Amino acid sequence: MSRIITLTTDFGTQDHYVSVMKAVMLDIIPDVRFIDISHEIPPQDVMAGAWVVRNSAPYFPPGTVHLVVVDPGVGTDRTPVAIKIKDQLFVGPDNGIFSLIGEEFGYEAVKLENEKFWREDRSTTFHGRDIFAPVAAHLANGVSIDELGDPLEKLVTYRWAIPISDKDGIQGWIVHIDRFGNLVSNIPSSLIKETIGDARLKIYVGNTILDEIVPTFGAVPDGEPAAYIGSSGKLEIAINKGNAKQMLSVEKGAQISIVVQK
Amino acid sequence: MSRIITLTTDFGTQDHYVSVMKAVMLDIIPDVRFIDISHEIPPQDVMAGAWVVRNSAPYFPPGTVHLVVVDPGVGTDRTPVAIKIKDQLFVGPDNGIFSLIGEEFGYEAVKLENEKFWREDRSTTFHGRDIFAPVAAHLANGVSIDELGDPLEKLVTYRWAIPISDKDGIQGWIVHIDRFGNLVSNIPSSLIKETIGDARLKIYVGNTILDEIVPTFGAVPDGEPAAYIGSSGKLEIAINKGNAKQMLSVEKGAQISIVVQK
Amino acid sequence: MSRIITLTTDFGTQDHYVSVMKAVMLDIIPDVRFIDISHEIPPQDVMAGAWVVRNSAPYFPPGTVHLVVVDPGVGTDRTPVAIKIKDQLFVGPDNGIFSLIGEEFGYEAVKLENEKFWREDRSTTFHGRDIFAPVAAHLANGVSIDELGDPLEKLVTYRWAIPISDKDGIQGWIVHIDRFGNLVSNIPSSLIKETIGDARLKIYVGNTILDEIVPTFGAVPDGEPAAYIGSSGKLEIAINKGNAKQMLSVEKGAQISIVVQK
Repeated sequence: MSRIITLTTDFGTQDHYVSVMKAVMLDIIPDVRFIDISHEIPPQDVMAGAWVVRNSAPYFPPGTVHLVVVDPGVGTDRTPVAIKIKDQLFVGPDNGIFSLIGEEFGYEAVKLENEKFWREDRSTTFHGRDIFAPVAAHLANGVSIDELGDPLEKLVTYRWAIPISDKDGIQGWIVHIDRFGNLVSNIPSSLIKETIGDARLKIYVGNTILDEIVPTFGAVPDGEPAAYIGSSGKLEIAINKGNAKQMLSVEKGAQISIVVQK
Repeated sequence: MSRIITLTTDFGTQDHYVSVMKAVMLDIIPDVRFIDISHEIPPQDVMAGAWVVRNSAPYFPPGTVHLVVVDPGVGTDRTPVAIKIKDQLFVGPDNGIFSLIGEEFGYEAVKLENEKFWREDRSTTFHGRDIFAPVAAHLANGVSIDELGDPLEKLVTYRWAIPISDKDGIQGWIVHIDRFGNLVSNIPSSLIKETIGDARLKIYVGNTILDEIVPTFGAVPDGEPAAYIGSSGKLEIAINKGNAKQMLSVEKGAQISIVVQK
Repeated sequence: MSRIITLTTDFGTQDHYVSVMKAVMLDIIPDVRFIDISHEIPPQDVMAGAWVVRNSAPYFPPGTVHLVVVDPGVGTDRTPVAIKIKDQLFVGPDNGIFSLIGEEFGYEAVKLENEKFWREDRSTTFHGRDIFAPVAAHLANGVSIDELGDPLEKLVTYRWAIPISDKDGIQGWIVHIDRFGNLVSNIPSSLIKETIGDARLKIYVGNTILDEIVPTFGAVPDGEPAAYIGSSGKLEIAINKGNAKQMLSVEKGAQISIVVQK
């Protein structure tokens, strides 16, 4: 066990919510080490949370516990879950936030049912503090996910988790726009290699058409758009020294297509 | 001693100020563990800081030291203080920022006078680095608050720290609006139970009138306002799947009344 | 060695980039302690990063490693470097971000050339994860900077790193505007003492003229501008209880002059 717990939430850092979850966990596992992944997931934006979880968790030491609380359905009947994906553990609501990482790597999931691992004094609006944080702390302390509740066969999964492809090309989605305005798709380089190979191609996103994939955005002149494989292994669109989101007027959730040219 | 120091400031995280305070403390207590509660308290907003301190500190392990630097009066004659509230310790300026937690739980306070525990090289504008941080580090190292200076009988307290009630109802204030736009009052559920009991009631806030307290905002239709007891045990107003601050045009500091219906 | 690594980036805290760098470092030095200095450096703003590095690093325990990734030129031929300045170590791109601290204290620098200390699987766009983070972790683990590559004689240095002075006065730059709107110049109090002494002076910044340096901004009436020596030992301009940037319409990079009155 790494005794590391990471935190990914939409709580922001202005309020006390994040620190209260940490205080609750310190009580259960005093020598825990916290790594804040992000508390700036846009409020209730499950797609954004799913993207961050997918791209951070695989790098952590074995046995790391990832506490993920982006939970628009708190107080309703969405299922609280614990998940094992490769050698990493996850705790949070089953609302699609584990879509991207779960579909890519496969998972083993359980419902959180055993109240022994929850806070005794519980509210209806702050399951982060009352259920998810204490369960994460117990997992980091060595409790097995089997002790937490019954298995859950299938997690909630969104359509945008998986790109569609055939012999004519690939249909994907812009699942993320980073701080620099770069547009990140859900199309992996491996799928491009397999579907397109060395054929000539056109890439359509918003009103922009590109006709090649370059090694890096630095390879095009300043102010020009470039398609390239980003650091997460997915197709990205950027403007060299500019903001692609603003200059190309593309929003998250937009479609992006690669069409083979014959 | 927990050897944990928490930090609550209005310094933001763009500048170097927070990290300099940490560096100063690491010099005094090398094995300290820092928990950042918030550095996004709106500049000089003592009410916001008081709210965060009240809602985070009580959850921490015994002996935790809370460094609180929201200090519009730095360089003037406001008193620097150390405070003991239950098993938690606090260091900061006596400007009302300890109002909410102090009035609710009671306190023992001293003035910071013993320069032995300060930084030798001191500025007039950064008492966070020069006085508060080193004092917090010495407290976390086991120094008693009695060694820091003479007792202070009464801390600065603001009117909004305490709601007013009689047989006709309760008059409170919106002391906090969270990231989701939920309006949080200073009216505890215990006071409602005691003053209103099972009587019919009306709640007035801004131009909105509500006539019941529901278990959670998820209990009303999407887009509708709801009054409920929030995770901090206080009356809150939210819009299910919406932003109450914007949709109801209510600002922090607004009055909120509960009136018994006869 | 302090086994502390600080982080200064323009990555923001919404994305996964910062946590991925931490995960990579945890793999190399499991007992590392991270101190986040800032991830809110404005995108690609090398001057802002240089300011934060200058003002935070000197306070840290000997042997602390400072990972600095504000890197508009990633993927181009700017040189990755490791630097020793007094008892502190630094890793990042040689793009002027070490200008202020290097010019003030002197430095010993090497180019990062030894790929043994890099990540095996490297991208062209995320040198923070693939080169800088692992090198920082190895330095914190006790690797000497000599092992990383050949010496580099001269780091990239910007003109705004050094104020100009003669017997008539001093010409400096506003190199930083803090969260409260205070204007921070690069003119040290020592230079004022040496050049101006006790002579009468006028200070020109934007359209504002001031004719004295006061002990603190609290010394002038509310709403009035004040010139004073700030907590970093440099000349600053603030409005007491107000925002100097907004009220005086001065931007970062503006000139500020002190002229001796005869």
